[in-house]
Amino acid sequence: MKRILIVGGVAGGATCAARIRRLCEQCEIIIYEMGSYVSFANCGLPYFIGDVIVEEDKLLVATPELFKNRFNIQVCTDSQVTAIDRENKTIVVHNLKSGKSRVEPYDALVLSTGAEAKKPQIEGIDLPAIYALRTIPDSRKIRAALHDIKHAVVMGAGYLGLELAENLIKRDVNVTLIQSSDQIMPTLDREMASFIEKHVTQHGMVCQTNAQVKKFTQNTDQSLTLHLQDGETLHADAVMISIGVKPRIALAQQAGLEIGELGGVRVSDTMQTSDQHIWAVGDMVEVRNYITGHWQLFPLAGPANRQGRLAAAHIVDHESAGASTHMTYRGVQGTSVCGLFDMTVAATGVTEKQLQAADYQHYEKVYLHPGNHVGYYPGAKPIHIKLIYDSRDGRVLGAQALGESGVARRIDVISAYIQMSATVYDLEEAELCYAPQFGATKDPVNLAGMLAANQLRDNHPLARWEELMESHVQVVESEQQEDAEQLLSLILDDPYSQAQIVDVRTVAEYENHHIPHAINVPLDELRNRLHELSREREVWVVCGVGQRAYNATRILQQHGFQVKNLSGGMKTYQAFME
Amino acid sequence: MKRILIVGGVAGGATCAARIRRLCEQCEIIIYEMGSYVSFANCGLPYFIGDVIVEEDKLLVATPELFKNRFNIQVCTDSQVTAIDRENKTIVVHNLKSGKSRVEPYDALVLSTGAEAKKPQIEGIDLPAIYALRTIPDSRKIRAALHDIKHAVVMGAGYLGLELAENLIKRDVNVTLIQSSDQIMPTLDREMASFIEKHVTQHGMVCQTNAQVKKFTQNTDQSLTLHLQDGETLHADAVMISIGVKPRIALAQQAGLEIGELGGVRVSDTMQTSDQHIWAVGDMVEVRNYITGHWQLFPLAGPANRQGRLAAAHIVDHESAGASTHMTYRGVQGTSVCGLFDMTVAATGVTEKQLQAADYQHYEKVYLHPGNHVGYYPGAKPIHIKLIYDSRDGRVLGAQALGESGVARRIDVISAYIQMSATVYDLEEAELCYAPQFGATKDPVNLAGMLAANQLRDNHPLARWEELMESHVQVVESEQQEDAEQLLSLILDDPYSQAQIVDVRTVAEYENHHIPHAINVPLDELRNRLHELSREREVWVVCGVGQRAYNATRILQQHGFQVKNLSGGMKTYQAFME
Repeated sequence: MKRILIVGGVAGGATCAARIRRLCEQCEIIIYEMGSYVSFANCGLPYFIGDVIVEEDKLLVATPELFKNRFNIQVCTDSQVTAIDRENKTIVVHNLKSGKSRVEPYDALVLSTGAEAKKPQIEGIDLPAIYALRTIPDSRKIRAALHDIKHAVVMGAGYLGLELAENLIKRDVNVTLIQSSDQIMPTLDREMASFIEKHVTQHGMVCQTNAQVKKFTQNTDQSLTLHLQDGETLHADAVMISIGVKPRIALAQQAGLEIGELGGVRVSDTMQTSDQHIWAVGDMVEVRNYITGHWQLFPLAGPANRQGRLAAAHIVDHESAGASTHMTYRGVQGTSVCGLFDMTVAATGVTEKQLQAADYQHYEKVYLHPGNHVGYYPGAKPIHIKLIYDSRDGRVLGAQALGESGVARRIDVISAYIQMSATVYDLEEAELCYAPQFGATKDPVNLAGMLAANQLRDNHPLARWEELMESHVQVVESEQQEDAEQLLSLILDDPYSQAQIVDVRTVAEYENHHIPHAINVPLDELRNRLHELSREREVWVVCGVGQRAYNATRILQQHGFQVKNLSGGMKTYQAFME
Repeated sequence: MKRILIVGGVAGGATCAARIRRLCEQCEIIIYEMGSYVSFANCGLPYFIGDVIVEEDKLLVATPELFKNRFNIQVCTDSQVTAIDRENKTIVVHNLKSGKSRVEPYDALVLSTGAEAKKPQIEGIDLPAIYALRTIPDSRKIRAALHDIKHAVVMGAGYLGLELAENLIKRDVNVTLIQSSDQIMPTLDREMASFIEKHVTQHGMVCQTNAQVKKFTQNTDQSLTLHLQDGETLHADAVMISIGVKPRIALAQQAGLEIGELGGVRVSDTMQTSDQHIWAVGDMVEVRNYITGHWQLFPLAGPANRQGRLAAAHIVDHESAGASTHMTYRGVQGTSVCGLFDMTVAATGVTEKQLQAADYQHYEKVYLHPGNHVGYYPGAKPIHIKLIYDSRDGRVLGAQALGESGVARRIDVISAYIQMSATVYDLEEAELCYAPQFGATKDPVNLAGMLAANQLRDNHPLARWEELMESHVQVVESEQQEDAEQLLSLILDDPYSQAQIVDVRTVAEYENHHIPHAINVPLDELRNRLHELSREREVWVVCGVGQRAYNATRILQQHGFQVKNLSGGMKTYQAFME
């Protein structure tokens, strides 16, 4: 009989414990949880704040009683493990209620201590109206305070910050969302995040980027003033801190387990730490990125659960033959999703930012904005997609998508392809669900693959928006001019540094709004107006979403022009401009 | 300059033409279309009947003018191609309006003549109130007749029949759906189709299976009487025939092209027919099933479009280097979807029926009924899933799913996995979108993979519902007894022929409804009540959806019982019983 102790009873730890029991009826299994709850739904906490989830009980996925009755697993809550004696294979458990400590022996130890909210080192951070949201008691505190909060500042615009801000707005709180870097949702590429900013702003969220807080002060009415680095001040009845989390590794450190450069515990692909009797799972560990091979932190519930499950298999494997067949951790792929006011934002694989940070040169990208289903069936909504792939062999590297409907579906499909090392040629050939209300004969996933595969076949040369935008932004910043488009037009006016922009939309569309200095040749007139175009420099074609421009690119390429498509058309242009 | 003629201007033909133009600006391209419209949305026709799509114009995806102006492609409508002279590489085009014929030479010929509605050889089939729906004029006729139709019979319960029946109900028509075989939606396995029958019946559709029509007669009020083989009669103001389609191959046959056993044109993986200058795409061709390798007919719009696209690449490849890189047809996978009164029905890969027909022995299956998202977030709806996989290596072979939300998403993901020859172990490891409103840390796709992988690891032995059901049904049929459950109890009572059924749900759930002669041992009491169970024969465990029974299976297996899980629990039991 094996004695297996588990430190931390949420997500990874709870899953690991239940799986161990299923594989080993004879093992003794004990969970020690520092908090008062095990296995609670921390992903649901923002929605509990927003009253979308009304009953607190719903957040308790499993209780200590269930663990006892169903799984014969003992759960000790309010029990902090304060030390590990690796040599003697014992731990010290400190009961937070009684104040007493005791020593417990183990055969195998699983660490699942999770992560804790990062707390910025700012003057005034401990003032009473400043909250963080990680636990059920945290959410209770915020709910109790809500009737006095008219205006809140949410600090940190990642997934949690955005979800929290949305839910506060649902509770009629005015919300200002501030972010120290230059974009909200920093896990996405910036031009894709601009769609989110536009959307949440339309729903009343005030977003302020490049906003660094210098200190908090309390006003006589108990409200807070936030003093920003640039001298500006913000006033709020409450501040919610959501600037991210960091692995909780004090125990692992004390025990001398290997810690990675990012501050998480290092584990093997069987979730084993540097001690062969100790495993670690969940938010506290570093994981390898499946695509770049680099270590990273990826504190999400899905990976934590899978890690817990496979650690269990390896812990009991020598007793239950085959339990760990096909069970090594392949790393994280970066799949995530967020719902914000009827918009879904989702991503999988790597972003362009990540590739640049990893100095990964051989990639290309396409933008597209197809409908979630055919246009002739009522209610079609656009999905904004960016697909990133290896420019040598077409291997799919990542995708980001936003829209009102069908977004998680397409990202999930691309996630499956990335897992299977698929190429854009595989995406072209995907045979996906089609009926008029569900998609199109060329699904958005097919279209993304086709655009990319055409590029790789050299049938679809792509221009880089950044070539326009980067110089554009530099000029704007250096000269502090306000009219960005006017400046862009000056740049584009130089025939040596830039291409000739040809807008192939209709005259009406062009006149409504166009890229400065773009000339208008509607696609259906193009074959008769080739003489109007430059053969001296590159022609960059643009349309609404990129489709007509692709047809124009094909025409021009075959007529001997140096031509490129501005991928994703004016929709992508607007995303870059914002 | 190449002269490329295309026979048939819908789906495959239209896509092929546009793609040829994109790859070859110099080619001459002409489309001959027998009907009056090219590139219309035939998948939308049922919804045009149902007034979901209100304007007929919406159904015209592209017009002859668009083909001319945008693609420099000539479209000849009302133009039937009546003969091919392969030796001289010419065709005879008969203008249906002028009545004149002419000869046109080609360098390459593409056949995309589609399929026609099967017309049953039944007395009275040409009576005026009998309709079929394949074209815009067909739909116009039905719409015009609708105000006189109080009751319609839809004959044929495949995708089109069901969609049509749903849309007629939306127009306040009483609908009886009849099917000659023993289940509606015959492309699914029968127990999965039973969920559909229950659902559409709740929405007022009357479904009658095993209903063979002997003849139609007209009544004095112009209504119809359907005389069935079993002597029963049905009355209707109109009958809609939707018993399937067959390839339209008269032209190909006349030209002596190779025709397959299923009545479709045989093509290579570059869509080339037995004549190297003639290609064929779409509903008229036979395609290989990607999984079984067998030829089949699969008349859906998605494959037709992909076939047209890649035929184009091969036709122009010698002029445009690389156009056909990574472009061979990999066969059809069988992905399909149908929306019926807020229920989505979708499938990919092969069904159990197909595997049995192909004498494919090495497969296993799991049933599950997870929520589309976590239960603690409001509005979770079950998805009923059947996953079929190779029992030797775990390769995923097929999946069928039904539910109100998130169905197409999961089937699309599994479709991608099947395309990539993935195994159930890959499904286990899928990293899919998770936030409370979008899924679960263990997504339905993960769960399906886990159940199957556990079975393959011998941690999760499965019982076969058919072992209960088949003998059960036989007895019912032979003795014509009415109380099926009573008979089942007699069978189960025999300890030598069947297993001991152990229901591990709560007492209240058990008392509400249970399998005859199942004994009740709630999961949480199981460890203390092992002595009550038989060690002489197999123990088959059942619960609500299979999850508690899985835990019970693990407990019993480790305590030395011969145990199996009745996959999918009482939900699957009910599906089989219906």
